[in-house]
Amino acid sequence: MKNVDSKPAPEAVKAVGRVSLVGAGPGDPELWTVRAARLVREADLVLYDALVDAVSLRGLTGAPCFHVGKRAGRTSVKQETIHKLMIRAARHGKHVVRLKGGDPFVFGRGAEEAIALAEAGIPFEIVPGVTTAVAAAELAGIPVTHRGVAAGFVVLAGHTSEALDGALGAIAPNSLTVVVMMAVAGRAAVAERLMAHGWAGDTPAAIVCGASTPESWSWTGRLNEFERVETPDGVAGVLIVGDVVTVRAAMSGHGADGTDRRGAEPREASYGRN
Amino acid sequence: MKNVDSKPAPEAVKAVGRVSLVGAGPGDPELWTVRAARLVREADLVLYDALVDAVSLRGLTGAPCFHVGKRAGRTSVKQETIHKLMIRAARHGKHVVRLKGGDPFVFGRGAEEAIALAEAGIPFEIVPGVTTAVAAAELAGIPVTHRGVAAGFVVLAGHTSEALDGALGAIAPNSLTVVVMMAVAGRAAVAERLMAHGWAGDTPAAIVCGASTPESWSWTGRLNEFERVETPDGVAGVLIVGDVVTVRAAMSGHGADGTDRRGAEPREASYGRN
Repeated sequence: MKNVDSKPAPEAVKAVGRVSLVGAGPGDPELWTVRAARLVREADLVLYDALVDAVSLRGLTGAPCFHVGKRAGRTSVKQETIHKLMIRAARHGKHVVRLKGGDPFVFGRGAEEAIALAEAGIPFEIVPGVTTAVAAAELAGIPVTHRGVAAGFVVLAGHTSEALDGALGAIAPNSLTVVVMMAVAGRAAVAERLMAHGWAGDTPAAIVCGASTPESWSWTGRLNEFERVETPDGVAGVLIVGDVVTVRAAMSGHGADGTDRRGAEPREASYGRN
Repeated sequence: MKNVDSKPAPEAVKAVGRVSLVGAGPGDPELWTVRAARLVREADLVLYDALVDAVSLRGLTGAPCFHVGKRAGRTSVKQETIHKLMIRAARHGKHVVRLKGGDPFVFGRGAEEAIALAEAGIPFEIVPGVTTAVAAAELAGIPVTHRGVAAGFVVLAGHTSEALDGALGAIAPNSLTVVVMMAVAGRAAVAERLMAHGWAGDTPAAIVCGASTPESWSWTGRLNEFERVETPDGVAGVLIVGDVVTVRAAMSGHGADGTDRRGAEPREASYGRN
Protein backbone atom coordinates (compact mmCIF):
# COMPACT_ATOMS: atom_id res chain seq x y z
CA MET A 1 0.00 0.00 0.00
CA LYS A 2 1.42 3.37 -1.00
CA ASN A 3 1.56 6.19 1.46
CA VAL A 4 1.16 9.30 -0.66
CA ASP A 5 1.27 11.68 2.32
CA SER A 6 4.73 11.02 3.70
CA LYS A 7 7.05 10.70 0.77
CA PRO A 8 10.50 9.90 2.20
CA ALA A 9 13.61 11.82 1.22
CA PRO A 10 15.60 10.11 -1.59
CA GLU A 11 18.37 9.04 0.82
CA ALA A 12 15.93 7.20 3.05
CA VAL A 13 14.51 5.23 0.11
CA LYS A 14 17.93 3.70 -0.51
CA ALA A 15 17.93 0.09 0.65
CA VAL A 16 21.13 -1.28 2.11
CA GLY A 17 22.77 -3.37 -0.57
CA ARG A 18 24.79 -6.50 -0.19
CA VAL A 19 27.43 -8.56 -1.92
CA SER A 20 27.43 -12.29 -2.66
CA LEU A 21 30.92 -13.71 -3.18
CA VAL A 22 30.11 -16.71 -5.31
CA GLY A 23 32.16 -19.60 -6.66
CA ALA A 24 31.40 -20.48 -10.27
CA GLY A 25 33.28 -23.78 -10.44
CA PRO A 26 35.78 -24.89 -13.08
CA GLY A 27 34.03 -23.54 -16.17
CA ASP A 28 30.96 -25.53 -17.26
CA PRO A 29 27.90 -23.49 -16.20
CA GLU A 30 26.19 -26.74 -15.20
CA LEU A 31 28.81 -26.97 -12.46
CA TRP A 32 27.59 -23.74 -10.89
CA THR A 33 25.65 -24.37 -7.72
CA VAL A 34 21.88 -23.99 -7.78
CA ARG A 35 22.39 -21.04 -5.46
CA ALA A 36 24.92 -19.36 -7.74
CA ALA A 37 22.41 -19.56 -10.59
CA ARG A 38 19.65 -18.13 -8.41
CA LEU A 39 21.80 -15.28 -7.12
CA VAL A 40 22.88 -14.33 -10.63
CA ARG A 41 19.23 -14.23 -11.72
CA GLU A 42 18.41 -11.94 -8.78
CA ALA A 43 21.49 -9.71 -9.00
CA ASP A 44 21.52 -6.01 -9.80
CA LEU A 45 25.17 -6.14 -10.88
CA VAL A 46 27.56 -8.99 -11.65
CA LEU A 47 31.34 -8.69 -11.51
CA TYR A 48 32.89 -11.81 -12.99
CA ASP A 49 36.29 -13.38 -13.49
CA ALA A 50 37.99 -14.61 -16.65
CA LEU A 51 37.17 -18.25 -16.02
CA VAL A 52 33.43 -17.66 -15.87
CA ASP A 53 31.35 -18.47 -18.95
CA ALA A 54 30.13 -15.03 -20.02
CA VAL A 55 27.56 -16.31 -22.50
CA SER A 56 25.76 -18.44 -19.91
CA LEU A 57 25.99 -15.60 -17.45
CA ARG A 58 24.29 -13.12 -19.76
CA GLY A 59 21.67 -15.72 -20.61
CA LEU A 60 20.62 -15.86 -16.97
CA THR A 61 20.44 -12.19 -16.09
CA GLY A 62 19.56 -8.86 -17.56
CA ALA A 63 21.72 -7.11 -14.95
CA PRO A 64 24.91 -5.37 -16.03
CA CYS A 65 27.80 -7.85 -16.06
CA PHE A 66 31.37 -6.59 -15.93
CA HIS A 67 34.43 -8.67 -16.60
CA VAL A 68 37.04 -7.84 -13.95
CA GLY A 69 39.23 -10.93 -14.19
CA LYS A 70 42.76 -11.65 -15.22
CA ARG A 71 43.71 -13.46 -18.34
CA ALA A 72 47.19 -14.01 -19.72
CA GLY A 73 48.29 -11.08 -21.83
CA ARG A 74 45.39 -8.86 -20.90
CA THR A 75 45.36 -5.97 -18.48
CA SER A 76 43.15 -6.74 -15.54
CA VAL A 77 41.18 -4.61 -13.15
CA LYS A 78 43.14 -3.91 -9.97
CA GLN A 79 42.01 -5.71 -6.81
CA GLU A 80 41.38 -2.38 -5.08
CA THR A 81 39.17 -1.28 -7.96
CA ILE A 82 37.08 -4.44 -7.60
CA HIS A 83 36.66 -3.67 -3.91
CA LYS A 84 35.60 -0.10 -4.70
CA LEU A 85 33.11 -1.21 -7.36
CA MET A 86 31.47 -3.70 -5.00
CA ILE A 87 31.32 -1.27 -2.08
CA ARG A 88 29.99 1.62 -4.14
CA ALA A 89 27.24 -0.44 -5.75
CA ALA A 90 26.20 -1.97 -2.41
CA ARG A 91 26.05 1.53 -0.87
CA HIS A 92 23.67 2.42 -3.66
CA GLY A 93 21.41 -0.41 -2.52
CA LYS A 94 22.45 -2.91 -5.16
CA HIS A 95 22.78 -6.64 -4.74
CA VAL A 96 26.19 -7.34 -6.23
CA VAL A 97 27.19 -10.84 -7.26
CA ARG A 98 30.94 -11.26 -7.38
CA LEU A 99 31.35 -14.40 -9.46
CA LYS A 100 34.74 -16.07 -9.17
CA GLY A 101 36.15 -19.11 -10.96
CA GLY A 102 36.31 -22.26 -8.82
CA ASP A 103 35.79 -21.62 -5.13
CA PRO A 104 36.13 -18.07 -3.76
CA PHE A 105 38.44 -19.12 -0.93
CA VAL A 106 40.83 -21.35 -2.89
CA PHE A 107 43.45 -18.92 -4.23
CA GLY A 108 40.66 -16.65 -5.33
CA ARG A 109 41.50 -13.63 -3.17
CA GLY A 110 37.95 -14.10 -1.93
CA ALA A 111 38.95 -13.58 1.67
CA GLU A 112 40.61 -10.28 0.73
CA GLU A 113 37.36 -9.17 -0.85
CA ALA A 114 35.37 -10.34 2.17
CA ILE A 115 37.64 -8.38 4.50
CA ALA A 116 37.34 -5.24 2.36
CA LEU A 117 33.54 -5.56 2.53
CA ALA A 118 33.58 -6.21 6.27
CA GLU A 119 35.76 -3.15 6.84
CA ALA A 120 33.37 -1.05 4.77
CA GLY A 121 30.40 -2.37 6.76
CA ILE A 122 28.78 -3.97 3.71
CA PRO A 123 26.73 -7.11 4.40
CA PHE A 124 28.03 -10.05 2.43
CA GLU A 125 27.70 -13.79 2.08
CA ILE A 126 30.07 -16.41 0.73
CA VAL A 127 28.77 -19.13 -1.56
CA PRO A 128 31.19 -22.02 -2.04
CA GLY A 129 31.82 -23.37 -5.52
CA VAL A 130 33.24 -26.54 -7.03
CA THR A 131 36.98 -26.06 -6.67
CA THR A 132 39.01 -26.58 -9.83
CA ALA A 133 41.76 -28.11 -7.69
CA VAL A 134 39.67 -31.25 -7.22
CA ALA A 135 37.41 -31.11 -10.27
CA ALA A 136 40.15 -30.77 -12.89
CA ALA A 137 41.78 -34.00 -11.77
CA GLU A 138 38.40 -35.68 -11.31
CA LEU A 139 37.11 -34.83 -14.77
CA ALA A 140 40.28 -36.38 -16.18
CA GLY A 141 39.57 -39.57 -14.23
CA ILE A 142 42.07 -38.92 -11.44
CA PRO A 143 40.85 -39.04 -7.82
CA VAL A 144 42.88 -36.78 -5.52
CA THR A 145 42.41 -39.36 -2.78
CA HIS A 146 42.20 -43.13 -3.17
CA ARG A 147 42.25 -45.87 -0.58
CA GLY A 148 45.73 -47.37 -0.27
CA VAL A 149 47.18 -44.90 -2.78
CA ALA A 150 46.87 -41.41 -1.30
CA ALA A 151 45.69 -40.63 2.22
CA GLY A 152 45.21 -36.98 1.37
CA PHE A 153 46.04 -34.16 -0.98
CA VAL A 154 47.75 -30.80 -0.97
CA VAL A 155 46.64 -27.81 -3.01
CA LEU A 156 49.18 -25.12 -3.87
CA ALA A 157 49.35 -22.28 -6.35
CA GLY A 158 52.14 -21.56 -8.74
CA HIS A 159 51.71 -17.84 -9.20
CA THR A 160 54.20 -16.80 -6.54
CA SER A 161 57.32 -18.88 -6.89
CA GLU A 162 58.81 -18.06 -3.52
CA ALA A 163 55.76 -19.11 -1.53
CA LEU A 164 55.36 -22.12 -3.80
CA ASP A 165 58.88 -23.33 -3.22
CA GLY A 166 58.43 -23.14 0.53
CA ALA A 167 55.14 -24.99 0.28
CA LEU A 168 56.55 -27.71 -1.99
CA GLY A 169 59.32 -28.24 0.55
CA ALA A 170 56.77 -28.58 3.36
CA ILE A 171 55.51 -31.93 2.06
CA ALA A 172 57.40 -35.18 2.54
CA PRO A 173 58.49 -36.54 -0.86
CA ASN A 174 56.06 -38.95 -2.51
CA SER A 175 53.59 -38.84 0.35
CA LEU A 176 50.36 -36.98 -0.46
CA THR A 177 48.86 -36.07 -3.84
CA VAL A 178 50.04 -32.59 -4.87
CA VAL A 179 47.83 -30.34 -6.99
CA VAL A 180 49.40 -27.11 -8.20
CA MET A 181 47.04 -24.51 -9.63
CA MET A 182 48.04 -21.74 -12.01
CA ALA A 183 51.35 -23.47 -12.67
CA VAL A 184 51.11 -24.93 -16.16
CA ALA A 185 53.52 -22.31 -17.48
CA GLY A 186 55.81 -22.96 -14.52
CA ARG A 187 55.57 -26.77 -14.71
CA ALA A 188 59.29 -27.32 -15.35
CA ALA A 189 60.17 -25.31 -12.24
CA VAL A 190 57.62 -27.22 -10.14
CA ALA A 191 59.07 -30.55 -11.27
CA GLU A 192 62.61 -29.33 -10.65
CA ARG A 193 61.75 -28.08 -7.14
CA LEU A 194 59.86 -31.25 -6.20
CA MET A 195 62.76 -33.41 -7.37
CA ALA A 196 65.19 -31.15 -5.46
CA HIS A 197 63.04 -31.79 -2.38
CA GLY A 198 63.41 -35.54 -2.91
CA TRP A 199 60.46 -36.54 -5.09
CA ALA A 200 61.23 -39.35 -7.55
CA GLY A 201 61.48 -38.22 -11.17
CA ASP A 202 59.26 -41.11 -12.24
CA THR A 203 56.39 -40.11 -9.94
CA PRO A 204 53.16 -40.29 -11.97
CA ALA A 205 52.02 -36.83 -12.96
CA ALA A 206 49.31 -35.16 -15.00
CA ILE A 207 48.44 -31.84 -16.54
CA VAL A 208 44.79 -30.90 -17.01
CA CYS A 209 43.84 -27.71 -18.83
CA GLY A 210 40.41 -26.18 -19.37
CA ALA A 211 38.63 -28.84 -17.32
CA SER A 212 34.88 -28.98 -18.00
CA THR A 213 35.19 -26.52 -20.90
CA PRO A 214 35.26 -27.12 -24.67
CA GLU A 215 39.05 -26.51 -24.49
CA SER A 216 39.47 -29.47 -22.15
CA TRP A 217 42.89 -31.12 -22.56
CA SER A 218 44.90 -33.49 -20.43
CA TRP A 219 48.17 -35.38 -20.36
CA THR A 220 49.55 -38.05 -18.06
CA GLY A 221 53.11 -39.19 -17.67
CA ARG A 222 55.87 -38.72 -15.14
CA LEU A 223 57.10 -35.78 -13.12
CA ASN A 224 60.42 -35.52 -14.94
CA GLU A 225 58.60 -35.19 -18.27
CA PHE A 226 56.75 -31.98 -17.40
CA GLU A 227 59.11 -29.71 -19.26
CA ARG A 228 58.85 -31.73 -22.49
CA VAL A 229 55.06 -31.57 -22.70
CA GLU A 230 53.50 -29.12 -25.11
CA THR A 231 50.42 -27.65 -23.51
CA PRO A 232 47.68 -25.64 -25.20
CA ASP A 233 48.15 -21.88 -25.25
CA GLY A 234 46.04 -19.57 -23.12
CA VAL A 235 44.07 -22.28 -21.31
CA ALA A 236 44.33 -22.35 -17.51
CA GLY A 237 45.20 -25.65 -15.92
CA VAL A 238 46.49 -27.62 -12.98
CA LEU A 239 49.36 -30.00 -12.34
CA ILE A 240 48.73 -33.22 -10.42
CA VAL A 241 51.61 -35.20 -8.94
CA GLY A 242 51.29 -38.55 -7.20
CA ASP A 243 50.41 -42.19 -7.59
CA VAL A 244 46.70 -41.39 -7.90
CA VAL A 245 47.40 -40.47 -11.52
CA THR A 246 47.72 -44.20 -12.22
CA VAL A 247 44.17 -44.82 -10.95
CA ARG A 248 42.92 -43.20 -14.15
CA ALA A 249 43.90 -46.31 -16.09
CA ALA A 250 41.56 -48.47 -14.01
CA MET A 251 38.55 -46.33 -14.89
CA SER A 252 39.46 -45.16 -18.34
CA GLY A 253 37.73 -45.83 -21.59
CA HIS A 254 34.28 -45.70 -20.12
CA GLY A 255 33.33 -42.13 -20.67
CA ALA A 256 34.41 -40.92 -17.25
CA ASP A 257 35.01 -37.52 -18.72
CA GLY A 258 34.70 -35.54 -21.87
CA THR A 259 38.35 -34.67 -22.06
CA ASP A 260 40.46 -35.10 -25.09
CA ARG A 261 43.31 -37.19 -23.79
CA ARG A 262 46.00 -36.08 -26.14
CA GLY A 263 49.54 -36.34 -24.92
CA ALA A 264 52.82 -35.12 -26.26
CA GLU A 265 53.73 -38.66 -27.23
CA PRO A 266 52.43 -42.20 -26.68
CA ARG A 267 52.69 -43.35 -23.09
CA GLU A 268 52.67 -46.62 -21.19
CA ALA A 269 49.25 -48.19 -20.92
CA SER A 270 49.63 -48.19 -17.15
CA TYR A 271 49.40 -44.44 -17.18
CA GLY A 272 45.93 -44.49 -18.55
CA ARG A 273 46.05 -42.68 -21.81
CA ASN A 274 43.27 -43.73 -24.11
CA MET B 1 9.97 -43.38 -37.45
CA LYS B 2 8.69 -46.74 -36.21
CA ASN B 3 9.46 -49.88 -38.09
CA VAL B 4 6.41 -52.11 -37.51
CA ASP B 5 7.76 -54.99 -39.61
CA SER B 6 10.85 -55.91 -37.63
CA LYS B 7 9.90 -55.90 -33.99
CA PRO B 8 13.08 -56.54 -32.04
CA ALA B 9 13.38 -59.21 -29.37
CA PRO B 10 12.81 -57.95 -25.78
CA GLU B 11 16.55 -58.14 -24.97
CA ALA B 12 17.43 -55.90 -27.88
CA VAL B 13 14.89 -53.27 -26.79
CA LYS B 14 16.73 -52.89 -23.52
CA ALA B 15 18.66 -49.63 -23.60
CA VAL B 16 22.12 -49.66 -22.08
CA GLY B 17 21.89 -47.91 -18.74
CA ARG B 18 24.42 -45.70 -17.13
CA VAL B 19 25.55 -44.37 -13.78
CA SER B 20 26.20 -40.78 -12.76
CA LEU B 21 28.50 -40.49 -9.74
CA VAL B 22 27.44 -37.13 -8.42
CA GLY B 23 28.73 -34.89 -5.64
CA ALA B 24 25.98 -33.32 -3.53
CA GLY B 25 28.10 -30.81 -1.64
CA PRO B 26 28.20 -30.20 2.12
CA GLY B 27 24.47 -30.49 2.84
CA ASP B 28 22.41 -27.49 1.72
CA PRO B 29 20.55 -28.57 -1.46
CA GLU B 30 21.21 -25.11 -2.92
CA LEU B 31 24.88 -26.11 -2.94
CA TRP B 32 24.18 -28.95 -5.34
CA THR B 33 25.38 -28.19 -8.82
CA VAL B 34 22.84 -27.34 -11.49
CA ARG B 35 23.84 -30.58 -13.16
CA ALA B 36 23.29 -32.64 -10.01
CA ALA B 37 19.76 -31.27 -9.77
CA ARG B 38 19.10 -32.02 -13.43
CA LEU B 39 20.46 -35.56 -13.22
CA VAL B 40 18.36 -36.31 -10.14
CA ARG B 41 15.25 -35.08 -11.98
CA GLU B 42 16.07 -37.37 -14.91
CA ALA B 43 17.14 -40.42 -12.89
CA ASP B 44 15.43 -43.78 -12.82
CA LEU B 45 17.00 -44.68 -9.48
CA VAL B 46 18.88 -42.67 -6.86
CA LEU B 47 21.29 -44.18 -4.34
CA TYR B 48 22.24 -41.55 -1.78
CA ASP B 49 24.54 -41.08 1.17
CA ALA B 50 23.78 -40.04 4.73
CA LEU B 51 24.87 -36.45 4.23
CA VAL B 52 22.42 -35.84 1.40
CA ASP B 53 19.17 -33.99 2.19
CA ALA B 54 16.56 -36.69 1.59
CA VAL B 55 13.58 -34.31 1.69
CA SER B 56 14.96 -32.10 -1.08
CA LEU B 57 15.93 -35.17 -3.03
CA ARG B 58 12.42 -36.64 -2.97
CA GLY B 59 11.02 -33.24 -3.85
CA LEU B 60 12.96 -33.29 -7.12
CA THR B 61 12.29 -36.79 -8.35
CA GLY B 62 9.63 -39.43 -8.40
CA ALA B 63 12.26 -42.12 -8.94
CA PRO B 64 12.97 -44.62 -6.17
CA CYS B 65 15.57 -43.21 -3.78
CA PHE B 66 17.54 -45.56 -1.53
CA HIS B 67 19.67 -44.48 1.38
CA VAL B 68 22.92 -46.46 1.25
CA GLY B 69 25.12 -44.22 3.39
CA LYS B 70 26.89 -44.54 6.67
CA ARG B 71 25.88 -42.73 9.78
CA ALA B 72 27.26 -43.13 13.27
CA GLY B 73 25.51 -45.93 15.10
CA ARG B 74 23.64 -47.23 12.08
CA THR B 75 24.45 -50.27 10.00
CA SER B 76 25.32 -49.22 6.50
CA VAL B 77 25.06 -50.91 3.15
CA LYS B 78 28.33 -52.62 2.20
CA GLN B 79 30.42 -51.02 -0.51
CA GLU B 80 30.17 -54.18 -2.63
CA THR B 81 26.38 -54.11 -2.34
CA ILE B 82 26.32 -50.53 -3.61
CA HIS B 83 28.42 -51.63 -6.60
CA LYS B 84 26.04 -54.52 -7.30
CA LEU B 85 22.94 -52.32 -7.03
CA MET B 86 24.37 -49.80 -9.50
CA ILE B 87 25.56 -52.41 -11.97
CA ARG B 88 22.34 -54.41 -11.88
CA ALA B 89 20.13 -51.37 -12.40
CA ALA B 90 22.30 -50.08 -15.24
CA ARG B 91 22.19 -53.51 -16.91
CA HIS B 92 18.41 -53.21 -16.79
CA GLY B 93 18.71 -49.99 -18.77
CA LYS B 94 18.29 -47.62 -15.85
CA HIS B 95 19.99 -44.30 -15.37
CA VAL B 96 21.31 -44.53 -11.83
CA VAL B 97 22.34 -41.42 -9.92
CA ARG B 98 24.77 -42.22 -7.14
CA LEU B 99 24.57 -39.11 -4.96
CA LYS B 100 27.45 -38.67 -2.56
CA GLY B 101 28.09 -36.03 0.11
CA GLY B 102 30.69 -33.42 -0.83
CA ASP B 103 32.75 -34.36 -3.87
CA PRO B 104 32.79 -37.98 -5.07
CA PHE B 105 36.59 -38.11 -5.26
CA VAL B 106 37.44 -36.52 -1.91
CA PHE B 107 37.39 -39.44 0.52
CA GLY B 108 34.10 -40.54 -0.99
CA ARG B 109 35.19 -43.93 -2.31
CA GLY B 110 33.97 -42.52 -5.61
CA ALA B 111 36.98 -43.83 -7.49
CA GLU B 112 36.32 -47.32 -6.13
CA GLU B 113 32.78 -47.12 -7.46
CA ALA B 114 34.02 -45.81 -10.80
CA ILE B 115 36.47 -48.67 -11.10
CA ALA B 116 33.78 -51.23 -10.27
CA LEU B 117 31.59 -49.74 -13.01
CA ALA B 118 34.46 -49.66 -15.50
CA GLU B 119 35.27 -53.30 -14.78
CA ALA B 120 31.62 -54.23 -15.32
CA GLY B 121 31.55 -52.33 -18.60
CA ILE B 122 28.90 -49.88 -17.40
CA PRO B 123 29.09 -46.36 -18.89
CA PHE B 124 29.46 -43.76 -16.19
CA GLU B 125 30.20 -40.11 -15.67
CA ILE B 126 31.59 -38.22 -12.70
CA VAL B 127 30.02 -34.94 -11.63
CA PRO B 128 32.16 -32.93 -9.19
CA GLY B 129 30.53 -31.39 -6.16
CA VAL B 130 31.37 -28.68 -3.65
CA THR B 131 33.84 -30.36 -1.33
CA THR B 132 33.06 -30.08 2.35
CA ALA B 133 36.81 -29.82 3.02
CA VAL B 134 36.83 -26.28 1.65
CA ALA B 135 33.19 -25.27 2.17
CA ALA B 136 32.97 -26.09 5.87
CA ALA B 137 35.84 -23.74 6.68
CA GLU B 138 34.55 -21.15 4.21
CA LEU B 139 31.01 -21.05 5.60
CA ALA B 140 32.54 -20.42 9.02
CA GLY B 141 34.48 -17.46 7.58
CA ILE B 142 37.81 -19.26 7.32
CA PRO B 143 39.63 -19.26 3.97
CA VAL B 144 41.81 -22.35 3.50
CA THR B 145 44.28 -20.15 1.60
CA HIS B 146 45.08 -16.50 2.23
CA ARG B 147 47.82 -14.30 0.84
CA GLY B 148 50.70 -14.04 3.29
CA VAL B 149 49.08 -16.48 5.72
CA ALA B 150 48.80 -19.86 3.99
CA ALA B 151 50.28 -20.70 0.61
CA GLY B 152 48.22 -23.84 0.36
CA PHE B 153 46.18 -26.43 2.20
CA VAL B 154 46.20 -30.13 2.94
CA VAL B 155 43.10 -32.30 3.16
CA LEU B 156 43.25 -35.52 5.17
CA ALA B 157 40.69 -37.89 6.62
CA GLY B 158 40.55 -39.14 10.17
CA HIS B 159 38.77 -42.43 9.64
CA THR B 160 41.89 -44.55 9.42
CA SER B 161 44.29 -43.55 12.15
CA GLU B 162 47.36 -45.26 10.74
CA ALA B 163 47.15 -43.56 7.35
CA LEU B 164 46.25 -40.30 9.06
CA ASP B 165 49.27 -40.37 11.32
CA GLY B 166 51.57 -40.91 8.36
CA ALA B 167 49.89 -38.09 6.47
CA LEU B 168 50.06 -35.69 9.41
CA GLY B 169 53.78 -36.43 9.67
CA ALA B 170 54.26 -35.69 5.97
CA ILE B 171 53.60 -31.97 6.44
CA ALA B 172 56.18 -29.59 7.89
CA PRO B 173 54.92 -28.19 11.22
CA ASN B 174 52.98 -24.92 10.98
CA SER B 175 53.38 -24.64 7.24
CA LEU B 176 50.19 -25.24 5.28
CA THR B 177 46.56 -25.15 6.44
CA VAL B 178 45.47 -28.64 7.50
CA VAL B 179 41.86 -29.76 7.11
CA VAL B 180 40.97 -33.12 8.61
CA MET B 181 37.64 -34.61 7.59
CA MET B 182 35.71 -37.20 9.58
CA ALA B 183 37.88 -36.53 12.61
CA VAL B 184 35.75 -34.60 15.08
CA ALA B 185 35.51 -37.66 17.32
CA GLY B 186 39.25 -38.18 16.96
CA ARG B 187 40.19 -34.51 17.44
CA ALA B 188 42.26 -35.09 20.59
CA ALA B 189 44.37 -37.68 18.78
CA VAL B 190 44.84 -35.37 15.77
CA ALA B 191 46.04 -32.55 18.04
CA GLU B 192 48.32 -34.90 19.94
CA ARG B 193 49.85 -36.28 16.73
CA LEU B 194 50.33 -32.84 15.16
CA MET B 195 52.04 -31.59 18.32
CA ALA B 196 54.19 -34.73 18.40
CA HIS B 197 55.21 -33.88 14.82
CA GLY B 198 56.27 -30.41 15.98
CA TRP B 199 53.19 -28.23 15.55
CA ALA B 200 52.83 -25.49 18.17
CA GLY B 201 50.09 -26.14 20.72
CA ASP B 202 48.85 -22.58 20.31
CA THR B 203 48.33 -22.91 16.55
CA PRO B 204 44.91 -21.42 15.70
CA ALA B 205 42.38 -24.18 15.12
CA ALA B 206 38.69 -24.58 14.40
CA ILE B 207 35.99 -27.22 14.39
CA VAL B 208 33.04 -26.87 12.02
CA CYS B 209 30.14 -29.32 12.18
CA GLY B 210 27.10 -29.59 9.93
CA ALA B 211 28.27 -26.82 7.62
CA SER B 212 25.46 -25.40 5.46
CA THR B 213 22.83 -27.41 7.37
CA PRO B 214 20.41 -26.35 10.12
CA GLU B 215 22.73 -28.13 12.59
CA SER B 216 25.60 -25.82 11.66
CA TRP B 217 28.01 -25.29 14.57
CA SER B 218 31.54 -24.00 14.84
CA TRP B 219 34.26 -23.27 17.35
CA THR B 220 37.61 -21.54 17.09
CA GLY B 221 40.51 -21.66 19.50
CA ARG B 222 43.89 -23.34 19.61
CA LEU B 223 45.16 -26.76 18.66
CA ASN B 224 45.89 -27.81 22.24
CA GLU B 225 42.28 -27.09 23.22
CA PHE B 226 40.69 -29.62 20.87
CA GLU B 227 40.16 -32.24 23.52
CA ARG B 228 38.36 -29.82 25.85
CA VAL B 229 35.77 -28.73 23.29
CA GLU B 230 32.30 -30.20 23.55
CA THR B 231 31.00 -30.82 20.06
CA PRO B 232 27.43 -31.60 19.03
CA ASP B 233 26.50 -35.28 18.87
CA GLY B 234 25.91 -37.05 15.60
CA VAL B 235 26.81 -34.15 13.32
CA ALA B 236 29.68 -34.68 10.87
CA GLY B 237 32.40 -32.08 10.83
CA VAL B 238 35.92 -31.05 9.97
CA LEU B 239 38.95 -29.83 11.87
CA ILE B 240 40.94 -26.87 10.53
CA VAL B 241 44.43 -26.14 11.81
CA GLY B 242 46.52 -23.14 10.83
CA ASP B 243 46.87 -19.38 10.98
CA VAL B 244 44.04 -18.90 8.46
CA VAL B 245 41.65 -19.49 11.35
CA THR B 246 42.54 -15.98 12.58
CA VAL B 247 41.39 -14.47 9.27
CA ARG B 248 37.83 -15.13 10.40
CA ALA B 249 38.08 -12.26 12.87
CA ALA B 250 38.73 -9.79 10.05
CA MET B 251 35.54 -10.71 8.25
CA SER B 252 33.31 -11.64 11.15
CA GLY B 253 30.12 -10.00 12.27
CA HIS B 254 28.91 -9.25 8.79
CA GLY B 255 26.80 -12.27 8.05
CA ALA B 256 29.49 -14.20 6.27
CA ASP B 257 27.76 -17.38 7.27
CA GLY B 258 24.73 -18.70 8.99
CA THR B 259 26.65 -20.65 11.59
CA ASP B 260 25.98 -20.48 15.24
CA ARG B 261 29.37 -19.59 16.62
CA ARG B 262 29.08 -21.15 20.01
CA GLY B 263 32.28 -22.16 21.70
CA ALA B 264 33.08 -24.14 24.77
CA GLU B 265 34.10 -20.93 26.56
CA PRO B 266 34.76 -17.30 25.65
CA ARG B 267 37.83 -16.81 23.52
CA GLU B 268 40.19 -14.01 22.61
CA ALA B 269 38.70 -11.52 20.20
CA SER B 270 41.60 -12.18 17.86
CA TYR B 271 40.21 -15.62 17.25
CA GLY B 272 37.12 -14.27 15.72
CA ARG B 273 34.28 -15.53 17.82
CA ASN B 274 31.21 -13.39 17.58
